[in-house]
Amino acid sequence: MSEPVLTWRDLPIRDDLRGLSPYGAPQLDVPYLLNTNENPYPPSAALVADLAEAAAHAAAGANRYPDRDAEELRKDLAQYLGHGLVGGNLWAANGSNEIIQQILQCFGGSGRSALGFEPSYSMHRLIALATGTTWISEPRSADFTLDPAAAAAAIERHRPDIVFLTSPNNPTGTAAPMELVEAVVDAAPGMVVIDEAYAEFFRPGTPSALTLLPGRPRLIVTRTMSKAFAMAGARIGYLAADPAVIDALLLVRLPYHLSAFTQAVARTALAHTAELLGTVDAVKAQRDRIVAELTALGLDVVPSDANFVAFGDFPDAHAVWQALLDRGVLVREGLLPNKLRVTAGTVEETTAFLDGLREILTEENS
Amino acid sequence: MSEPVLTWRDLPIRDDLRGLSPYGAPQLDVPYLLNTNENPYPPSAALVADLAEAAAHAAAGANRYPDRDAEELRKDLAQYLGHGLVGGNLWAANGSNEIIQQILQCFGGSGRSALGFEPSYSMHRLIALATGTTWISEPRSADFTLDPAAAAAAIERHRPDIVFLTSPNNPTGTAAPMELVEAVVDAAPGMVVIDEAYAEFFRPGTPSALTLLPGRPRLIVTRTMSKAFAMAGARIGYLAADPAVIDALLLVRLPYHLSAFTQAVARTALAHTAELLGTVDAVKAQRDRIVAELTALGLDVVPSDANFVAFGDFPDAHAVWQALLDRGVLVREGLLPNKLRVTAGTVEETTAFLDGLREILTEENS
Repeated sequence: MSEPVLTWRDLPIRDDLRGLSPYGAPQLDVPYLLNTNENPYPPSAALVADLAEAAAHAAAGANRYPDRDAEELRKDLAQYLGHGLVGGNLWAANGSNEIIQQILQCFGGSGRSALGFEPSYSMHRLIALATGTTWISEPRSADFTLDPAAAAAAIERHRPDIVFLTSPNNPTGTAAPMELVEAVVDAAPGMVVIDEAYAEFFRPGTPSALTLLPGRPRLIVTRTMSKAFAMAGARIGYLAADPAVIDALLLVRLPYHLSAFTQAVARTALAHTAELLGTVDAVKAQRDRIVAELTALGLDVVPSDANFVAFGDFPDAHAVWQALLDRGVLVREGLLPNKLRVTAGTVEETTAFLDGLREILTEENS
Repeated sequence: MSEPVLTWRDLPIRDDLRGLSPYGAPQLDVPYLLNTNENPYPPSAALVADLAEAAAHAAAGANRYPDRDAEELRKDLAQYLGHGLVGGNLWAANGSNEIIQQILQCFGGSGRSALGFEPSYSMHRLIALATGTTWISEPRSADFTLDPAAAAAAIERHRPDIVFLTSPNNPTGTAAPMELVEAVVDAAPGMVVIDEAYAEFFRPGTPSALTLLPGRPRLIVTRTMSKAFAMAGARIGYLAADPAVIDALLLVRLPYHLSAFTQAVARTALAHTAELLGTVDAVKAQRDRIVAELTALGLDVVPSDANFVAFGDFPDAHAVWQALLDRGVLVREGLLPNKLRVTAGTVEETTAFLDGLREILTEENS
């Protein structure tokens, strides 16, 4: 008789994890990958060569630990963001997920709470759970907007230790108006995290929460190089805040968390900001095209300041998702009831998605 | 009047963090860096070229997220370890610190406890604290060994959710005999982590805890590529365990935690195992030389199975540390009362350390 095969449920894991399943969209090999809000444009051959050279430089000293505080990278990030920020205002980690985790470890944890306005980026909730922080979910309006007075009232009611506000919101796509951000920051008794992972895709006229940083030491603005900067594979997230916030995060950050290769790759990418962000207008054009064409199809489309669009409503969203996949187009399901989320890709990718969807809707109606 | 400058103490951080200071040895630019147990041998020009090529390959697709489960890297790590392990037994992260953090998030946390035999690797305790896990410190003997029966009795007394045993122990250097590892594993009611960061430096005849894995699903053996593999700059830690353990860790791991560059660098380094581990015998020779020469000097020297040696006792260890630093030799202080810890370097580095120390001891005695 062979030994019984164990599963993770047989191990003494924390009770509050037992209901979970691992986060993650399927990683499938299909022609049109429009499910994880990646930038469709790979780096140019010239940038690839520069990245390889930076990696070679890091490799030559790879037997030594990296700069534990990533001083040069933080200066470069500050210069990119502007707003009078300096290296001491910046902090970087392996993706904005690790930034969120460090914030929750430092300011959250057992006996503390974090509040988010959902639907939103689910990792806020999941990392809160993993760090033992109580998660408070406040609903958005039916159109996914948020009334500033209602948001402030919810914060005053719960008095959470941390508030998360995602702008543009994911998976819905719309940016938070500045009066909403200000209302949230003013109402919060503790830390406020404005997650601006998609900020470079804002429609014109939407200011960043970075403008609110001066004089607000409990405000944190998080960003990433995974989206507009087209560096999802390099895993570089960062934040801007008062230097006191970064000093606090040093208490929980894992020493040497950011490899010499990551630091070198990030700095090289930042030195090519013009090339990398040169793709943003093309992506935004396809985003606006998706919004226009899906609206013309009579669908419910959420206004987008990001590189993705949420759309529906479908009586059976999974069937539409599967029919798109059958046509080689992978979009994201399961984030919003009756809706799907599609990433704005290249012209060709976007066309494949729009043609496929039109075909599917025509078949359904025939 | 200018605004008062805030410090992290003014922010609403968790109360249990208030007593902490950030982990980390000073990163100083001196000729002889013998303080963080790095391998002194940088990769060869041929390996640097291969690493750059691997990075170029990763860069070409850097706009896409990496393989979330690092499948190929885990297969390569399994092949390196042998012992009949396969990819499903392996898990990798950004340094063994992140491995330890994932274990504590999954099996520890608020209301749970982890036990370590101290002095040992302080990150076990610090990450336990950051994850809200109660830390139980059990003492080692005066010579830093551990009696198997006493260790088992301590575990039975406290019944911790996780036991950490470091072998070779850091900062002392001696490996745990197999009967000690077996006693700890048998006594533990929960998970057991054998931290084998320095296992490649074992003296002959010391078996790895990997031999105990079959049939023991609560045993985890952690390793790193930072030491023997001379890849501290690349931040690659890993573990071997029952596949159920890895399934459990998927519940808390940050999605896409391991960048495409890290995965590529790690796989390339593993493809050059013979070159990289070819430095181990030279390092061990210097380690044994340090033990012999310091013993001849009449110092108290801890037997070492690692790439470092703990030595003393000094009435004023800081003064000796400073005198070595004045001679361009950086060793580690503050880990053991009255003792210092030195990394075995190249012949030249080791000579600089030994000559410097002899000079200092002669001056003291004159």
